[in-house]
Amino acid sequence: MSAIEQKLAAQGLALAPPRAPVANYLRTKRSGALLFVSGLVSTLRGAVGAEVTPEAAKLAARDTMLDLLAFVKHDIGDLDQVMSVEQVRGFVRSATDFTAQPAVIDGASDLLVSLWGEAGRHARTATGVSQLPFGAAVQLEMIMRLRD
Amino acid sequence: MSAIEQKLAAQGLALAPPRAPVANYLRTKRSGALLFVSGLVSTLRGAVGAEVTPEAAKLAARDTMLDLLAFVKHDIGDLDQVMSVEQVRGFVRSATDFTAQPAVIDGASDLLVSLWGEAGRHARTATGVSQLPFGAAVQLEMIMRLRD
Amino acid sequence: MSAIEQKLAAQGLALAPPRAPVANYLRTKRSGALLFVSGLVSTLRGAVGAEVTPEAAKLAARDTMLDLLAFVKHDIGDLDQVMSVEQVRGFVRSATDFTAQPAVIDGASDLLVSLWGEAGRHARTATGVSQLPFGAAVQLEMIMRLRD
Repeated sequence: MSAIEQKLAAQGLALAPPRAPVANYLRTKRSGALLFVSGLVSTLRGAVGAEVTPEAAKLAARDTMLDLLAFVKHDIGDLDQVMSVEQVRGFVRSATDFTAQPAVIDGASDLLVSLWGEAGRHARTATGVSQLPFGAAVQLEMIMRLRD
Repeated sequence: MSAIEQKLAAQGLALAPPRAPVANYLRTKRSGALLFVSGLVSTLRGAVGAEVTPEAAKLAARDTMLDLLAFVKHDIGDLDQVMSVEQVRGFVRSATDFTAQPAVIDGASDLLVSLWGEAGRHARTATGVSQLPFGAAVQLEMIMRLRD
Repeated sequence: MSAIEQKLAAQGLALAPPRAPVANYLRTKRSGALLFVSGLVSTLRGAVGAEVTPEAAKLAARDTMLDLLAFVKHDIGDLDQVMSVEQVRGFVRSATDFTAQPAVIDGASDLLVSLWGEAGRHARTATGVSQLPFGAAVQLEMIMRLRD
């Protein structure tokens, strides 16, 4: 088991099998030392601040990041090959008056930092949108740097 | 005629002259081996799921990608200089209850795969938004990798 | 004072101390020669086309870019180390019928071009969204290239 997956297990977490892409794209694309990870939506549905609480959305952000990490492991073979996390972008399906998107996306960022420490800290943008694929509450994408 | 443009012609498609930027930005910016391609909106206007059908929006996504490729040809001279497509991001102006954004953006992704094959497959995010420049139905942006 | 800050001063502008991140992310992340700059929202609140005029939003975009440049200076030490601006992404919190997002984001792009000239010109996407963190009017993020 890789060192990163041991850290996951210590938190009581594990990677599920990677979900299949829902359309004509790759889960990840390697570009030199960078790995572009496709956007993925949470299995949790609904608008945050209406049907979904911020706390539930934050947990969904963590779980969606877990699923993105399953993409990465599937495509590169071993999460220990990740050198650092460069950028995370999060879209939160938001009720009209919901403006705490950053706190929701912390569910994803906190997980990355717990696994990679300082190298897991990243640039980030958290944005509100009115709708997401399948009516999901959260969507995440990411750029990572891989070891040579 | 480049090999890529021959493949376009075989589909009955051709590149139009590149549209001018509507504001103070470049159509594309080269960054080392990467080419950042600016966001472009479809000439089709309206919200998908309301005034615009998903089928019409998918076709508009293809046509918008054609226009992005015209940007790329204008700026780098020859589409055969594209080594691979790294990332595509699509925003779909969505009626409140429209959640099939991935199927719309497939109009763009299918075209790229038809032209570049495996190298044209890419990481992707498809997101719903409430409004786009000029009231357009679809907006696309892209990152490509160029040959040395 | 750096050459870039002298150009700011000649416009009557100056960098404020960098605002603290509002959640668990870095202001910027260096990735090889690239610098990913996190999304930042304007201090101006409200939907453009409703509570906020396009002119006020354009000025807010300029001021938000100034604050992003303060992030960059804080993290890399000197704005003269910026070789070029690769990509800017702008999200505009838009009233239902507001579709002039590109003109708003020009407030940011014009500033970059005034400081770095041709090297400050960039690929760009301007998108409308229904909500942003803290109810802000504008959100900007950026990718820059640094000197070796």
